[in-house]
Amino acid sequence: MAIPGSSYRFTIRMKALNKPGMVGIVTSTIGRLGGDIGAIDIVSAGDGFVTRDYTINTVGVKQSQKITDALKVLEGVEVINVSDRTFLLHLGGKIRIENKVPLNTRDDLSMAYTPGVARVCTEIAKDKGKVYNLTIKKNTVAIVTDGSAVLGLGDIGPEAALPVMEGKAMLFKRFAGVNAFPICLNTKDVEDIIKTIEHIAPVFGGINLEDISSPRCFEIESRLSKQLSIPVFHDDQHGTAIVVLAGLINALKIVKKDLSEIKIVISGLGAAGIACACLLKSAGAKNIVGIDSTGILYRGRIDNMNVAKEAFADITNPENIKGTLKDAIKGTDFFLGVSAPDILTVEMIKSMAADPIVFALANPVPEIDPVAAEPHVAIISTGRSDYQNQTNNVLCFPGFFKGLLACNAATINLEMKIAASLAIASVIGPGELSTDYIIPSVFDERVSDRVAKAVVKAAIETGVARRRPKQTGSTIP
Amino acid sequence: MAIPGSSYRFTIRMKALNKPGMVGIVTSTIGRLGGDIGAIDIVSAGDGFVTRDYTINTVGVKQSQKITDALKVLEGVEVINVSDRTFLLHLGGKIRIENKVPLNTRDDLSMAYTPGVARVCTEIAKDKGKVYNLTIKKNTVAIVTDGSAVLGLGDIGPEAALPVMEGKAMLFKRFAGVNAFPICLNTKDVEDIIKTIEHIAPVFGGINLEDISSPRCFEIESRLSKQLSIPVFHDDQHGTAIVVLAGLINALKIVKKDLSEIKIVISGLGAAGIACACLLKSAGAKNIVGIDSTGILYRGRIDNMNVAKEAFADITNPENIKGTLKDAIKGTDFFLGVSAPDILTVEMIKSMAADPIVFALANPVPEIDPVAAEPHVAIISTGRSDYQNQTNNVLCFPGFFKGLLACNAATINLEMKIAASLAIASVIGPGELSTDYIIPSVFDERVSDRVAKAVVKAAIETGVARRRPKQTGSTIP
Repeated sequence: MAIPGSSYRFTIRMKALNKPGMVGIVTSTIGRLGGDIGAIDIVSAGDGFVTRDYTINTVGVKQSQKITDALKVLEGVEVINVSDRTFLLHLGGKIRIENKVPLNTRDDLSMAYTPGVARVCTEIAKDKGKVYNLTIKKNTVAIVTDGSAVLGLGDIGPEAALPVMEGKAMLFKRFAGVNAFPICLNTKDVEDIIKTIEHIAPVFGGINLEDISSPRCFEIESRLSKQLSIPVFHDDQHGTAIVVLAGLINALKIVKKDLSEIKIVISGLGAAGIACACLLKSAGAKNIVGIDSTGILYRGRIDNMNVAKEAFADITNPENIKGTLKDAIKGTDFFLGVSAPDILTVEMIKSMAADPIVFALANPVPEIDPVAAEPHVAIISTGRSDYQNQTNNVLCFPGFFKGLLACNAATINLEMKIAASLAIASVIGPGELSTDYIIPSVFDERVSDRVAKAVVKAAIETGVARRRPKQTGSTIP
Repeated sequence: MAIPGSSYRFTIRMKALNKPGMVGIVTSTIGRLGGDIGAIDIVSAGDGFVTRDYTINTVGVKQSQKITDALKVLEGVEVINVSDRTFLLHLGGKIRIENKVPLNTRDDLSMAYTPGVARVCTEIAKDKGKVYNLTIKKNTVAIVTDGSAVLGLGDIGPEAALPVMEGKAMLFKRFAGVNAFPICLNTKDVEDIIKTIEHIAPVFGGINLEDISSPRCFEIESRLSKQLSIPVFHDDQHGTAIVVLAGLINALKIVKKDLSEIKIVISGLGAAGIACACLLKSAGAKNIVGIDSTGILYRGRIDNMNVAKEAFADITNPENIKGTLKDAIKGTDFFLGVSAPDILTVEMIKSMAADPIVFALANPVPEIDPVAAEPHVAIISTGRSDYQNQTNNVLCFPGFFKGLLACNAATINLEMKIAASLAIASVIGPGELSTDYIIPSVFDERVSDRVAKAVVKAAIETGVARRRPKQTGSTIP
């Protein structure tokens, strides 16, 4: 994983016999393999040994690994620890709690804490709705996972999922100013998860479900949405679907096709695939065929089914065709992959309709290598940051929740999701739109605000906004 | 609640008929009652009305109330809203989440989030213990309440409890650099509370239970302490007990009495009273008599009992006396009140032993007015910030958790609590100790660090530390 344009720095802690020449043996080994030593720091010495930290610049993780392997077999030297930049960045976590007001005087204390706080508590006890104005609930989201479907890593558990949830919290803050706190649950039981989220809900203005495996995620989301008075959003489903629809809206403008007329194949029928199908249908798509590792999903299929797939089968595959991806993809206008690496071939793409659109979003390795696919498609998008047209949920969830919180939305509806898709798509003006620019960059500062405003507008129009935010300047307060 | 030495500012939003002279009528009313207008801002205008915010300085809440009342009865004017400084300070909550590292480039994203984060997740999945180093768990505490016993306000529910928990989170940060996040539970069921805390535990390095009513708090704490691998601390119990013991240690130095020889009466047998009795006993006290609204607690009492009081009766009241506070207090050396306002009289104090020590900690109104008590006692302490010798939990919990987290303590034991009491007491040197200075100020910067170090030392000595922190300079890393 060489990071283009940035050197790869790592620190290796080594315990060596305290005798002349040991440092020379280490540094020459590092130099021989092309490592550039930035610093040597002594950590401790005694008992005939010296422990040193060597900070080394290389061009990438492979070279670092080679150096580490070479150092590990040196006589008289023991590698204690290897820290690379990514690990160093994670030490002690990536987010922190900060106080918004100082606590330096008696006066500060008496307002933020006792006795002054008692009047604020009493006010909320009299009118529970005031919790939205007088506490962090106004602008705070829980990022809840059970660690069962994390990135491409699968069921790694709540502890191992935490670095991702912290990263997500960072994105909420960075792109929308929303406070998000990770909640990693030590249970995979659907009832336990629902109950736990219900119990902790009072502090939060919204719930972002994350990396909960399918099909449990559907039941958890739909039951919580009904039971809680705050919005619940499973990002793997709806975040993905909203950004996919945004990209597709722009892609269809370029190839001059209409969503209601195109044929769509969705590969992967987990949380993302099923949510994408639902949103595309609601936005006007009429012909969607789903496919998973078992093959095309059709009404009456027995193998590898679940409740979500049953429902999916009911609303897709109008001709109820059967077979493999090769069968499904013939004459298709849009291939959406949220499935597995390298399942799509150039041959298959060649069998698609004219001006085919391919979104190969499997992460980190797409359904087809975009470089191989490009000559044969009108438009290609992947989830990769090192390639054009990155479909990335970051374009949606920060602004989406910013909007939800700004208008204190009671729930999330279809109108809000489609409004968010249109908002993302609208960031790229008609004059800017091109085959390699159908989706804005994740760093495009306009996206989050535009999504937030669209969500607020849709919430007000559909009657689920409980507050009408002031529109002051470019940001929603 | 006039705050001495600081003016009281409030903002009143008024909607008035849009006709000449209306502002004059309002400002002259404010001026006549001694209010000083700081600013007038137009909020909106239209339909023949103008809405304005008047920001007014007064000497206190009473004057502000008079002005508000006078404005409310003015013809053609409607008071929409009144905001005082305390409420303004609470708008949108008092804490926020911040990112510890920037997210401005692709390189930042690829380390903090995908794809780099996957390597960190994988590392924790392989060795769960690494969650302490690579995530916020290292330095993050949950402040958990069900809102059933908040301040003196009682059972006000989870939403109304949130401003207190946010305030507590601020204190954790301000005095110990610990990240604390409020969890306000929408359930009062003991099993539900225990299960919920177990489920959310993976993110946290410790659990601070707060304002959960007695006797449920005892079962919740003891079961969680057994089941979780992180420390669980009910501050209302142990925080209070630790600070009380600290104050008593210093008070006894002044009156030259020994803890093992004095007679103690504890008024109030809720969470705090029972925990204080346990800690005082463990520290060497032999003669403690407890009393509640029913009277003296004795072995065999039937009325107003619970499991905790049964246990309390077993270890206190050696002579098994019966009666009222008046009976109990005769010849007592130390009165500890964690009960109700104005239940202790000067007459009762006069019946105490020579050089009586009185800790009247009921909040906000103590068991006896300290001004009335002072001529008749050797030493008096209250929970009030406007009086000498304030017994305040803030002296304990930030440093206590800082210590727990620094050494990754598996649990909390008696040795750590007594070490914390001694550490707090030790901040006041022998030359400084006096009847009006037995407890350090909450703003004394030495306290938190000294408590943290004492907790770490005790944890190491008793074998519950899972990490030996480096002692670099004055702070624990």
